[in-house]
Amino acid sequence: MLKKQLAGEKAVEFIEDGMVIGLGSGSTVFYTIQKIGELVKKGLRIQGVPTSQETTLLAQSLHIPLVSMDEVDEIDLTIDGADEVDRNLQGIKGGGGALLYEKIVACTSRKIIWVVDESKMVELLGGFPLPIEVVPFGYKQVVRKMEEEGCHPVLRISNGSPFQTDGGHYIVDLHMNKIKNPENLAEKLQKVTGIVENGLFLNCADQVIIGGQDEVKIETRGKNK
Amino acid sequence: MLKKQLAGEKAVEFIEDGMVIGLGSGSTVFYTIQKIGELVKKGLRIQGVPTSQETTLLAQSLHIPLVSMDEVDEIDLTIDGADEVDRNLQGIKGGGGALLYEKIVACTSRKIIWVVDESKMVELLGGFPLPIEVVPFGYKQVVRKMEEEGCHPVLRISNGSPFQTDGGHYIVDLHMNKIKNPENLAEKLQKVTGIVENGLFLNCADQVIIGGQDEVKIETRGKNK
Repeated sequence: MLKKQLAGEKAVEFIEDGMVIGLGSGSTVFYTIQKIGELVKKGLRIQGVPTSQETTLLAQSLHIPLVSMDEVDEIDLTIDGADEVDRNLQGIKGGGGALLYEKIVACTSRKIIWVVDESKMVELLGGFPLPIEVVPFGYKQVVRKMEEEGCHPVLRISNGSPFQTDGGHYIVDLHMNKIKNPENLAEKLQKVTGIVENGLFLNCADQVIIGGQDEVKIETRGKNK
Repeated sequence: MLKKQLAGEKAVEFIEDGMVIGLGSGSTVFYTIQKIGELVKKGLRIQGVPTSQETTLLAQSLHIPLVSMDEVDEIDLTIDGADEVDRNLQGIKGGGGALLYEKIVACTSRKIIWVVDESKMVELLGGFPLPIEVVPFGYKQVVRKMEEEGCHPVLRISNGSPFQTDGGHYIVDLHMNKIKNPENLAEKLQKVTGIVENGLFLNCADQVIIGGQDEVKIETRGKNK
């Protein structure tokens, strides 16, 4: 079985009947959602809150009952992927471009589990380019500012045009290589007008399920959120 | 002459030939833009960067040459209105719903002048509801959070539906009455996922032109930005 599949499928063990479940996006949560679809077919009653158009379509095809963010007071558990995770379970997300909605869902969740294959675990964040979601109006000013700050920004392009998120924004990827102080960087990015959200998910995941060769490992954050 | 008109028209005295001018939005800058239109007709050469769809249409009707934010490296001077201004020239903007683009333009401007009538000058900000621009996805979570924080949020409605900004976001107005520490509040709002921008424009205006009964008063900020 694929490492991604091992991790993705393991996560469903944390789902209980009646829960509201945040459904992340990406190639590892894909397996979680597939598995949830099987369980729903067998009688599991949950409501899913999707974080992207892609996840909405997948969940619908599997007949998983969906509700929107605005119909729930709280999400019991969110299962999502991550692009990079360090020892303290701090992470980078947004490789697929869904970081804004993923973060909004995460902020409303009582518990968050990330599913990754072991290649995503790193000593220091930043090898994976950090995505920031940017307002299209005047985005070049944000790019220039990021250049001045030494963040090596690159506008994400898709089919010859700027990639557009579900929220209608652009993505700029910061090729920083090493992010020594993620908290500082996150705070700096929050202050920049024109940046809607950044892909640093700090103090967010409660558990990370890591898919290895033939087994999964589960890491738990020291304190609950 | 109207107080707004007095202030709005005075601002053109600061415009020099060849400048790139940020064109704000609202009922006072309306007079500035009208006056710029007259001067352009007489031969003034400037390029305008509009902050809203409304301003774009007005400027086009007056044959003021326009460029987009992404075509300029810097804006020489931005002339904009404000909804409330305190003694330190800190302000609230966004009554018209253009705060995000106005702030993006402001951040790229070497000099900023606000034009207001004297009724906008206040001891303490907050009598005017503070607008925040919010991502539609999950906006109710932001509203709930603002309620918990005692900010008295009200979703702005237009013709029976949520008001939509030029950027496709919603506006939530915070009826706080008195904002004792604008810096603290701004920092708190910046950290909330789902809030794209807030209407506190701090350390922003270099000069404020205040229209009174028969005269204008010009206040200058202690230090340049």
